Amino acid sequence: MSVEAPGDSRRSAKWESRRQAIIDTSARVFARQGYHATGITELCAANNLGKGALYHYIGSKEELLAAIHDRVMDEVMVGADRVAQAAGPPSRQLAMLGDELLDVIHRYPDHVWVFLHEFPALTGEWAEQFRLRRREYERRVEEVMRAGVGSGEFRDLDPRLTALAWLGMHNYTYLWLKAGGRLSARDVAQPFAEIFFRGIAGA
Amino acid sequence: MSVEAPGDSRRSAKWESRRQAIIDTSARVFARQGYHATGITELCAANNLGKGALYHYIGSKEELLAAIHDRVMDEVMVGADRVAQAAGPPSRQLAMLGDELLDVIHRYPDHVWVFLHEFPALTGEWAEQFRLRRREYERRVEEVMRAGVGSGEFRDLDPRLTALAWLGMHNYTYLWLKAGGRLSARDVAQPFAEIFFRGIAGA
Repeated sequence: MSVEAPGDSRRSAKWESRRQAIIDTSARVFARQGYHATGITELCAANNLGKGALYHYIGSKEELLAAIHDRVMDEVMVGADRVAQAAGPPSRQLAMLGDELLDVIHRYPDHVWVFLHEFPALTGEWAEQFRLRRREYERRVEEVMRAGVGSGEFRDLDPRLTALAWLGMHNYTYLWLKAGGRLSARDVAQPFAEIFFRGIAGA
Repeated sequence: MSVEAPGDSRRSAKWESRRQAIIDTSARVFARQGYHATGITELCAANNLGKGALYHYIGSKEELLAAIHDRVMDEVMVGADRVAQAAGPPSRQLAMLGDELLDVIHRYPDHVWVFLHEFPALTGEWAEQFRLRRREYERRVEEVMRAGVGSGEFRDLDPRLTALAWLGMHNYTYLWLKAGGRLSARDVAQPFAEIFFRGIAGA
């Protein structure tokens, strides 16, 4: 097993890039056959690595699952930050959030599948971190709802419940929105934004 | 192992009722720890049955999973039939479909969890039957969208894409809508119907 001391090149660009490739390949394997049904031996074969080398990059199978979740959440939060930085009324922000979210779901179908199906397999610290990151994103959506209600652009509604309706409508596309499919992320985001905005618009 | 000849009391009311209880208990176990991670031994313990007796009622672990799916789909289709039989404009039918669907999700949180998380574990005939039943329900929702577009009650939109938006918004509640929770199925169905109807209403 390759062992390197702390503070060495472990987190070099090369190590990081190899690690990301392993995360992506493993997401594909988990999406096909499930997290619990996949053994370390299969992950080694899929990544063309020995056991020691695999652990060197990913630590443990659960850490790998957490890394798949983080890959999705990193992208989702980068999109949410872009939206927060852009000026514009809540309706525009909500449409942008939809564009960003569906773009991630469209580009990372395997990761998102694993994300939404296997999160109950995370335990302890991993589970808590995942819960907090997910909650943070939900809060961003709620804030936009609250701002729209406040400004009168949206009618008087429950921001939390409305955010959950919006999240369901968008997240659930992971079951049928596929990269290379008939529909682009934009083809879906645009009519969804229209349904949702009309649905919550103020008088 | 208890063996009975075909055509005997195997499908008696008592057998059927015991089988349903096993399906419900097993749905709870699968929802807690996952289908793949649950062994027959654990199912026996949870149901207080020996291996032979358990197989007598459920056939196989995969048949049990299919039965959990069927339990949800049976309820969902009974609701969809009630809606189809009720007279009323498409907007009313859509609101009723939402009431019925959220009622099932609210009453069967474990089954629905297993339904939505573990369906990829179904193989061959079971998978195909599940796909067909699911498609049949989606078609009911699409038909209501199409009828509303046809009558002008809804604006000119893609019935399939709009049905998928509606299904996502409603199905995704399985993650947070819980029997005994703060919100009843009705508390959610009503504002959801309002968002959706305003979102797709014709001029």
